[in-house]
Amino acid sequence: MAVNLTVPTNVHSVPGVAIGTACAEIKQSQRHDLAVINFVAGTEVAGVYTQSAFAAAPVLLARQREQSCRAWVVNSGNANAATGQSGIDDADSICVQVASHFDVDKEQIQPFSTGVIGERLPVAKICSAIDVAVQSQAADHWHEAAHAIMTTDTLPKLASKQIDIDGEVITLTGMSKGSGMIKPDMATMLAYIACDAPVAHALLKRLVKEVADVSFNRITVDGDTSTNDCFMLAATGVAPIEPITSETDASYLPLKAAVVEVAQTLAQAIIRDGEGATKFVTVRVDGGATQEECLAVAYTVAESPLVKTALFAGDANWGRFCMAIGRSPVLALDASLVHLWLDDVQVAANGLMSPSYSEQEGARVMAQEEFTVRIDLGRGTASEWIWTTDLSYDYVRINADYRT
Amino acid sequence: MAVNLTVPTNVHSVPGVAIGTACAEIKQSQRHDLAVINFVAGTEVAGVYTQSAFAAAPVLLARQREQSCRAWVVNSGNANAATGQSGIDDADSICVQVASHFDVDKEQIQPFSTGVIGERLPVAKICSAIDVAVQSQAADHWHEAAHAIMTTDTLPKLASKQIDIDGEVITLTGMSKGSGMIKPDMATMLAYIACDAPVAHALLKRLVKEVADVSFNRITVDGDTSTNDCFMLAATGVAPIEPITSETDASYLPLKAAVVEVAQTLAQAIIRDGEGATKFVTVRVDGGATQEECLAVAYTVAESPLVKTALFAGDANWGRFCMAIGRSPVLALDASLVHLWLDDVQVAANGLMSPSYSEQEGARVMAQEEFTVRIDLGRGTASEWIWTTDLSYDYVRINADYRT
Repeated sequence: MAVNLTVPTNVHSVPGVAIGTACAEIKQSQRHDLAVINFVAGTEVAGVYTQSAFAAAPVLLARQREQSCRAWVVNSGNANAATGQSGIDDADSICVQVASHFDVDKEQIQPFSTGVIGERLPVAKICSAIDVAVQSQAADHWHEAAHAIMTTDTLPKLASKQIDIDGEVITLTGMSKGSGMIKPDMATMLAYIACDAPVAHALLKRLVKEVADVSFNRITVDGDTSTNDCFMLAATGVAPIEPITSETDASYLPLKAAVVEVAQTLAQAIIRDGEGATKFVTVRVDGGATQEECLAVAYTVAESPLVKTALFAGDANWGRFCMAIGRSPVLALDASLVHLWLDDVQVAANGLMSPSYSEQEGARVMAQEEFTVRIDLGRGTASEWIWTTDLSYDYVRINADYRT
Repeated sequence: MAVNLTVPTNVHSVPGVAIGTACAEIKQSQRHDLAVINFVAGTEVAGVYTQSAFAAAPVLLARQREQSCRAWVVNSGNANAATGQSGIDDADSICVQVASHFDVDKEQIQPFSTGVIGERLPVAKICSAIDVAVQSQAADHWHEAAHAIMTTDTLPKLASKQIDIDGEVITLTGMSKGSGMIKPDMATMLAYIACDAPVAHALLKRLVKEVADVSFNRITVDGDTSTNDCFMLAATGVAPIEPITSETDASYLPLKAAVVEVAQTLAQAIIRDGEGATKFVTVRVDGGATQEECLAVAYTVAESPLVKTALFAGDANWGRFCMAIGRSPVLALDASLVHLWLDDVQVAANGLMSPSYSEQEGARVMAQEEFTVRIDLGRGTASEWIWTTDLSYDYVRINADYRT
C-alpha cells in the first residue's frame, strides 16, 4: 500500500553505534519488538519530544536523560502512556536493566515506547529480551531495529548518507516509524538518526530542533498527535575531524544539510506509509502574511476529511480546497485574492475557477500518486509547505480493527 | 443508516407561512430541488451565517436582506460558492424572479444554495421552477420543502412544536439539511425555523444567535465548515398575542425554550444522519477553566480520526480519548487531574485507568448507538458539550463518490 516507498539496501553502519534486537512478545510472539541502540562513550544526544499533555512515561524520562546518554531502548506494541507513576517506574526498571549491561547509570539510558495507550508494560519479558538484544549487538543491525520499532507500518523506514568533511567520510543513518496518529507537535512518533561527527551538545540541541521544523514537524496523516512522539539525534564523535561547536564552523552547514536530507527522507517515509495511504501530497502555501498563517492554511487543507477523501478518489473537486481554505483560522482572508494550483495546472484565480482550467487537466494531476496542491493567499511573501496523504477505506479499516 | 432519526408526522403549519417546491433539474431530474418559503407582510426574519472566508454568493446577499424579508428561496444540488461576481448576479436574478410573484423588491428575498462548490447555477431552469413552486404553494408543504433541500441526507429533517402563550397556541416548525461538511461556525449548513409569534427584529436577532450557540454551533461531523451555512428564524406575528420586544417580556422565555427545543432536534437530526453515521455521541467536558477550553477539548476529541474510528468499531480504546485530550489547544493541562467516563462507567481517574474500570463495561457502553463521553479536566467549573458521530467506511465511500 505504501506510496513509492522503498527500503534502502545501502544502509551504512555508524562508527560508535551498536544495535541489538529481540522478541519480547509484547503483542506478538513471532517478531522482534525491542531494540537497544548503544553508543560509545563521549556521544552527544539531543531530541525533541511530544508536547502532548498526556506525554507518555518514557518520554518524561527520556527528556531528562540526554546528558551522557549511552543507549536508547525502544519497544513497540505498548506505548506505556496514561500509566501514571507505575508507568514511570516500569520505564525506569527497563533503563536499569540496560544500564547494567553497559556499566553505566540508569540516567544514561533513554527509554522509548510505541503502541497501545493505557496498558502496563510487561517489564519482566522486556528485561529478558534486553539481555538477548545486547548479546546480539552489531554495527549493521539498522534494518533489524527499523523492523522492531514498527507498529501499523507496512515497511521499515531507513535512510543513510555519507558526506565528506575535511577529507574524512562522515556517516549518517536513521530510522523512523509511524503511520497513524501522525501530526507531530515537536517530532514524529519515533525517529532516530545517528552520525559519527563530533558535535557539541548545545549545538546538537539547536540542530535537532531546526531539522524537526523542516521534516517531522511538516507532516500530517490524520492531525492526531501521539503521546509518544520523539525525534532523537546522536553524534558519536568517532570521526577524526575537528569538533563542531558553533553554527559558524565551516563543517556545520554541510552536516546540517545531510541531517536534513536524512530526516526529510524518513519523514516522507512516514507519509508514504501512512495508514491506508494511496497518495503522497505536498500542500504548499505561498503569499501569506506570516509563516504561521501559511501553516494554518496548509494543515486545515491537509486535515480536512473532505479534501482527504477527494484526494483518495482522485477527484478534482476543487471547491473542497476552497472550503478548507475558507475555514482556516486566518483573520480577514480575502477570497478574491486566492489562487490555487494542482501541480502546474491553475485551478482557481482570484477565488473562482480559472478561465484556463479544464477538469480533465485537474483530474490528470490528481490521478498521479504524487502531486502538489499550491495555494497563494495574496497577502504577503511568507511560504510554508507540509506533506500529507489521503483518507481511504483502509485508514478506517486499520483504525477500526487496531486492537482486535 | 441514520441513528435513531425518525421523520415526524405531526408537523404543524405555521400561520403566515406558505411553501412551494419544484424540480429545477439542477443535479437530478427526478426530485424536487427548489423550495420557496413565503411570509406574510410584517414577518421579522433573523439569521446567523457562515464565517467562511469563501462564503457563497447567496450568503453574501442573504445576510444583507433580513429587513422586511418576504421569502426564502432555497436550491439544492449546487452551492453557488466560489463563483465570484457572476454567482452574486445569478443569486440576484433568482431573487428578482421570486420578488415578481409577490410584488415586492428583490431586496426582500433571501437566497440560499447547497451542493457542489465552484459551478455556476442554472439560472433559467431555476427561474422556471420558481414559477411552478409558487403555483403549488400551501401552508402544509414543510415535508416537501425538507425533501427539496436535501443533498447527501438520507432523510428529511423536521421538528414542530406548539406552546401556549397568553391562552393562544403558538406554533413553531423547522427543517434542516446537512450531513457532511458539518462543523458550523455560525450555524449549520441550512436550517430554517418559522413561528407565528410577533417578535421585534432586534430581539429575534439576539435569539437566533443564542439558539445557534446551543444547537447548530454544538455539532460536528467532520470538522469541515461549509461555505453556505445558514440558520434562519422567522416570526410571522400572525398570532394574536402582545408583541415580544424584550428579553424581560414574560412570553420571551417560553418562546425561547420552544425555539431551542426545535433547533436542538434539528441539529441532532443532522448528526443522526451524518455521512456514514452509525453512532450518536455526546462529548461533554466539565471542570474547565473557561467554556472556550471545554469546547476546544470537546471538538478535538470529537474530530480526532482515531477517536472517530474507535467509535465506529465500538472499541473502548480509551487511550485514544487521552491522546486527543492531550493534544487539545489548552495551556498547561495537567493530565493527572483528568477523569473520563463512558456514560456512567468511569474509565480513567487522575489521568490513568480507573481501578474500578473493566473493559467489558466500556465495551458495553460503546456498543450502544447513543452514549456520552464525559471528561473532567479538573481545572475549574466551566462545562460545555457537543454532539458528534463516528467515521465509517460509508463516510469515505460517500465522499469519495460524491460527484460521480
